[in-house]
Amino acid sequence: MTSDNYCVIMGGGIGSRFWPFSRVNKPKQFLDFFGTERSLLQQTFDRFNKIIPVENIYIVTNELYADLIKEQLPELPETQILFEPQRRNTAPCIAFASYRIKAINPNANIVVAPSDHLILRENEFLITIKTGLEFVKENKALLTLGIKPNRPETGYGYIQVESEENTIFKKVKTFTEKPNTELAKVFYESGEFFWNSGIFLWNVQQIVQAFNDHLPEVSSIFASGEHTFNTSEERTFINNNFSACPNISIDYGVMEKASNVYVLCTDVGWSDLGTWSALRDISPKDEHGNASLKCKTIYYNSNNNITALSNPNKLAVIQDLEGYIIAESENVLLICKKDDEQKIRQYVIDAQLNFGDEYV
Amino acid sequence: MTSDNYCVIMGGGIGSRFWPFSRVNKPKQFLDFFGTERSLLQQTFDRFNKIIPVENIYIVTNELYADLIKEQLPELPETQILFEPQRRNTAPCIAFASYRIKAINPNANIVVAPSDHLILRENEFLITIKTGLEFVKENKALLTLGIKPNRPETGYGYIQVESEENTIFKKVKTFTEKPNTELAKVFYESGEFFWNSGIFLWNVQQIVQAFNDHLPEVSSIFASGEHTFNTSEERTFINNNFSACPNISIDYGVMEKASNVYVLCTDVGWSDLGTWSALRDISPKDEHGNASLKCKTIYYNSNNNITALSNPNKLAVIQDLEGYIIAESENVLLICKKDDEQKIRQYVIDAQLNFGDEYV
Repeated sequence: MTSDNYCVIMGGGIGSRFWPFSRVNKPKQFLDFFGTERSLLQQTFDRFNKIIPVENIYIVTNELYADLIKEQLPELPETQILFEPQRRNTAPCIAFASYRIKAINPNANIVVAPSDHLILRENEFLITIKTGLEFVKENKALLTLGIKPNRPETGYGYIQVESEENTIFKKVKTFTEKPNTELAKVFYESGEFFWNSGIFLWNVQQIVQAFNDHLPEVSSIFASGEHTFNTSEERTFINNNFSACPNISIDYGVMEKASNVYVLCTDVGWSDLGTWSALRDISPKDEHGNASLKCKTIYYNSNNNITALSNPNKLAVIQDLEGYIIAESENVLLICKKDDEQKIRQYVIDAQLNFGDEYV
Repeated sequence: MTSDNYCVIMGGGIGSRFWPFSRVNKPKQFLDFFGTERSLLQQTFDRFNKIIPVENIYIVTNELYADLIKEQLPELPETQILFEPQRRNTAPCIAFASYRIKAINPNANIVVAPSDHLILRENEFLITIKTGLEFVKENKALLTLGIKPNRPETGYGYIQVESEENTIFKKVKTFTEKPNTELAKVFYESGEFFWNSGIFLWNVQQIVQAFNDHLPEVSSIFASGEHTFNTSEERTFINNNFSACPNISIDYGVMEKASNVYVLCTDVGWSDLGTWSALRDISPKDEHGNASLKCKTIYYNSNNNITALSNPNKLAVIQDLEGYIIAESENVLLICKKDDEQKIRQYVIDAQLNFGDEYV
C-alpha cells in the first residue's frame, strides 16, 4: 500500500429517480437498496479502503449532506470532507479535490469515483484499480474505466477505443452519448465500444495540467487559492470563488478534449443503478421476473415488477400488475409503470406543489 | 325515552374482506374508515344512544374483542357486554341477548343491529327505529328493516313484500338470496323488493316465542339457564352450554319460518359496507371515479380505483391503474383488482401460510 495513492468519492449528487426511496434530504448514495446494512456510499468507501488508506480518501459533497456523511462514515476525518457551496457538475468538483490533494502530495495518484454505483465483482475491480494507479504513476495519461458491455444498453454513454491488441489500456477514439436501440446493438456487437463508468484515474500533475489546457477558467480559480488549501482560510476561499466555476462535466470539459486519454477496459459487474429498471435488472427475480427489494412479497398473475418497501418486515400482496414499480418509503407510496419511470421527476414536483416539502 | 326500549349490537363478526385494513385482532367494526375518529361500532353505539339509554344497550361479541370494546366504549358497563364462547351465527347470539334482557325486563322492546353498517341519514333512521319500537310494543310482530333499493344491487339479500297500500309496515311475501344481475334488475324495478338490512325489532316475548316455535333446540338451552342470567353463574352456564347451539342465522332459523314477520320499509342511506367496492360506491370520488380514504393521493391516467392508507399524512402517487384496490395498513400493502376482491380471502390465507400470523 503506497501512500501516494488517493481516492476521491463524489458524493454530492441529488436526484429524484428513486423517489420515494430517495429524498432531497437523503439521495440515492445514502441508501441501502439491498438490505446489506451499508449504503452505496459506505460500500464505495469500504471498497476503496481495502487498497487505499483512510487518510488518503476524500469525499466531495454538498453542505446539506454533512451530517449524513459523518453519520455514515464516522471513521473519515472531517478535514477529508470537501464541501461544494454550489452545484457545478463534475469538473469543478474534481478540480477542487485535485488542487486540495496536490497541496498535500504533489505525487498523488488519484482514483475518482461516484458514490452511488454498484460493483458486483469487487476483487477484479480492486485489481483493476491497482493496475490503473500503477499505469498513471508511470504514464502521463488520463485514464477512464471502460466496462465491457454485456447487453446493448441504451441508458449508458459509450467510449469507442482503438483496437490495439494485447493490452487492457486502449486509446480513446470517441466518446458517445446514450445511443438509441439500433445503435446500441451495433456498439455492443462491434467489440470496440465500452460503457463509460465515470470512474477516472490519473496522477495529480496530469489532471491539473489537463485543467490548465482545457478548462483554464476552472484551473485559474483554484490556482489562485492554492495557498489557502489545508488552512483555515480554505473554506472562505471556496465559498467566495466556487460559484464562479462554469457548470460543466469532466467528460465534456476535459476527457473529450485531451489527447492523452486511455481506457482501462474491464468487466467488474458494474452498474450505475441509474433507474428502477436498472435496479430490477441486477436484482434477484422470481420466475415471473418480479424483483422484491427489502420486503416480503406475494405476486399473483403479475410479471416483471419491482417492489421496494422501506421496512423489511412489510408484506406486499400484488395481483394483476405487469411491469410496474411499487415503491414505498416513509410517507409516500408510488405505483407507476416501469416504462414510464422518467415521469417520476414530474410526480415529485407535483407532490411538492400539492402537498409540500415533506413529501420530496 | 322509555326504559322498555333496548338495543342489542352484534359486534362479534370476523372477516377478511377488508384486509389488510381489517385484521383478525381488529375486524371491520372496530375500524374508522372515513377518518371521523369513531369506528363503525362507536358510530352504531352513538346512533342508538340518542334514543336508547346507555343502561339498555347491550353488545354481543367474542371474548377476543373484550379489550377493544372496553377501549372503544368506556361508557358501556361491562355487564352489558355479552361474550359468545364460540361462533354460532346470529340466531344463538340473538337468543342469548333476548333471554338475558327478558330476565331484567320482560316487557322489553328490542332493536337488534349489526355493529359494522353505515347509516347516512341518521335522523330518518332514528325516527324509523322509534316508530318500529312503538309498532312491536303494540303488535305481536317480528319486524325487519327493509331498505328501499336505489340500484339493482347483486350483493344484498332482498325481501319481497305484499303490496299493502299506505303503510310502511308491510307483510313479508318471501326472503330471497343475493340475486344475479338480471334478477336484481327485476327486483329493483318491481317496487315490491327491499334490501334485507339485518336490523330487527321485536318485543322480547315475541322473539322468545318465535325461538320456542321455530328453533326449540336453541330456546331450550337458554330457558334451562334462565335462573343464571344476571348472576355470577351466567358466565359458567354460557361457557358450558353455548357450544350446543346449532350454527344458524336468525333469517334462516326464525324470520323465514315465522308467520308474523313484517317489513318496516324505509330509505335511510344504509350500506352494509360489505366490500371495498361498496365502500368506494358510497365514498366521495374524483372526476375519474377514484376514491381516497384517509390518505392523500395523486392519480395519473387512473380510473375507478379505491386507495386506503392507514396514515392520513401518507401520499399515494398512482399511475395507470384502472379499477384497483390499493390498501395499506401496518405491515401489509395490498394491490388487487376491484373485480377480483373475493380473492382477498385467499390472499389472507396465503399471507398467513407464507409469512405468519402477524400479517393477518
